[in-house]
Amino acid sequence: MKLSILGCYSATPRIIAHTTSQILETRGHLFLIDCGEGTQVEIRRHKIKFNLIKHVFISHLHGDHYFGLVGLISTFRLLTRETDLHIYGPKGLKDLITLQMRLADSWTNFKLIFHELTSKSSELIFEDEKVSVYTIPLDHRIYTNGFLFKEKAFERKLNLNKVEDLNIDKAYYRKLKQGDDVVNDQGLLISNETVTFQGHQPKSYAFCSDTAYKEDIIPIINGVDVLYHESTFLESHAHLCEKTKHSTAKQAATIALKANVKQLILGHYSTRYGGLEGFKTEASSIFKEVLLANDGKIFDF
Amino acid sequence: MKLSILGCYSATPRIIAHTTSQILETRGHLFLIDCGEGTQVEIRRHKIKFNLIKHVFISHLHGDHYFGLVGLISTFRLLTRETDLHIYGPKGLKDLITLQMRLADSWTNFKLIFHELTSKSSELIFEDEKVSVYTIPLDHRIYTNGFLFKEKAFERKLNLNKVEDLNIDKAYYRKLKQGDDVVNDQGLLISNETVTFQGHQPKSYAFCSDTAYKEDIIPIINGVDVLYHESTFLESHAHLCEKTKHSTAKQAATIALKANVKQLILGHYSTRYGGLEGFKTEASSIFKEVLLANDGKIFDF
Repeated sequence: MKLSILGCYSATPRIIAHTTSQILETRGHLFLIDCGEGTQVEIRRHKIKFNLIKHVFISHLHGDHYFGLVGLISTFRLLTRETDLHIYGPKGLKDLITLQMRLADSWTNFKLIFHELTSKSSELIFEDEKVSVYTIPLDHRIYTNGFLFKEKAFERKLNLNKVEDLNIDKAYYRKLKQGDDVVNDQGLLISNETVTFQGHQPKSYAFCSDTAYKEDIIPIINGVDVLYHESTFLESHAHLCEKTKHSTAKQAATIALKANVKQLILGHYSTRYGGLEGFKTEASSIFKEVLLANDGKIFDF
Repeated sequence: MKLSILGCYSATPRIIAHTTSQILETRGHLFLIDCGEGTQVEIRRHKIKFNLIKHVFISHLHGDHYFGLVGLISTFRLLTRETDLHIYGPKGLKDLITLQMRLADSWTNFKLIFHELTSKSSELIFEDEKVSVYTIPLDHRIYTNGFLFKEKAFERKLNLNKVEDLNIDKAYYRKLKQGDDVVNDQGLLISNETVTFQGHQPKSYAFCSDTAYKEDIIPIINGVDVLYHESTFLESHAHLCEKTKHSTAKQAATIALKANVKQLILGHYSTRYGGLEGFKTEASSIFKEVLLANDGKIFDF
């Protein structure tokens, strides 16, 4: 998986602080997660091809997470896109985008397929043979979901020397990659493990923003490779979390620890702090594997 | 008048080409004209104080002219603005902004006053003792207005030596500045011209974007100091004007010539051309006083 941070600051876009948007590349997909104002320009800056984005996931309808969506759709239209675009987000988004197209009398030639979310339980919202995506219900001022991206098992890799030595017909290679045992030219049953290696380890990524500290998400994200959890505040402003329904860096780290995740990426920082080091220091006191998101940063895992 | 070009390119925002937005400073007002995506960041870049913007004029509801408006309003809210904001734009804008606030469950503390435009004739939409603003009905694919900003007459300036020599009481200075004749301490009628100089020359600015070539606007903008007229295309793409309802640089210049304006600023360029010089060359063949808008450029007149 490759995660490109297009923006990771809260509230309002500034010259050097973009609001939330990320691209997750996994198994041939480019998933766009949230789309703050100006996201289309950041996509250009990252030299990501617009046409490869086929699925957009919107966590909630606060502007810093979606004000760039209508402009992105409009640009896709102007560039004469023909590829379908799937949009997963809270109920209301479809009406809003449709109203803007009606006012502009500008309709897309490509299919715009809205998957409006209303459930308060985690649900499977996308699945193909390689990846599944689930919602992660969060606790924010308005209806909000995080998203869990799970790669499915990769095919096993052939031990080419062994399959030749044991006279296995090439027609069986596909079954072997899928983990099945096969019969060789001499009629002997060959157990899969003797002629294959384990495939790549499937990865998982959980995006959780915006949210107050919510232990209910722990079973959903348990054991993920990477958790992006918002940390709007440092401890000095912990008293603001309850009213604003945001988290501190320490709360994000506590979720990471309890959910037994491998790595935690912090983001959705308030711009009131001089730098980001305070977020890392406070989170690291609870959970060791902490990384800081920043605009333009790319994480490979 | 001081005109700051925040963005002057058509269609879609790019890293170094912002969509339409300008700030016109005149007689203590900062008028925001159009508000493409990312305008709020450009306002920050120009170090323009958000609170001084009290009037926003939206020409039409194509995204490159207004997608930044909801984000700007949202930022004003987050910065706890209390000053009223007046928005002049096509009918539909109020519903759209209100829907976005409802979906976010985020309402402004300041008053948001919409002046929805529907007239197809030029009308006075703002007036105080110093400035008037009129609409300029344009010819585009959807309902569109340009805007004419006219300074009212400045006060006359006192010739201080003369008023003292002629024994005019200070109580009469205000009347003199307003152009009246007055009586001096000896009971003599003093004609205004003998003791005052002409005040500053009032200026006028017409913003016309987006529009096809439309001679109907000539009487409205006749004699303005500065005309900003869109020139999306060069002659090589003149055939696209009719369908897209845009203008060429030559058409913009023809309007400038026929309307007897003092200076023409070109803008709303298609990004298909390598540079901007072609626009100036083509327009100059018809009208001499041509200037090129560009992002970040400031015009004083």
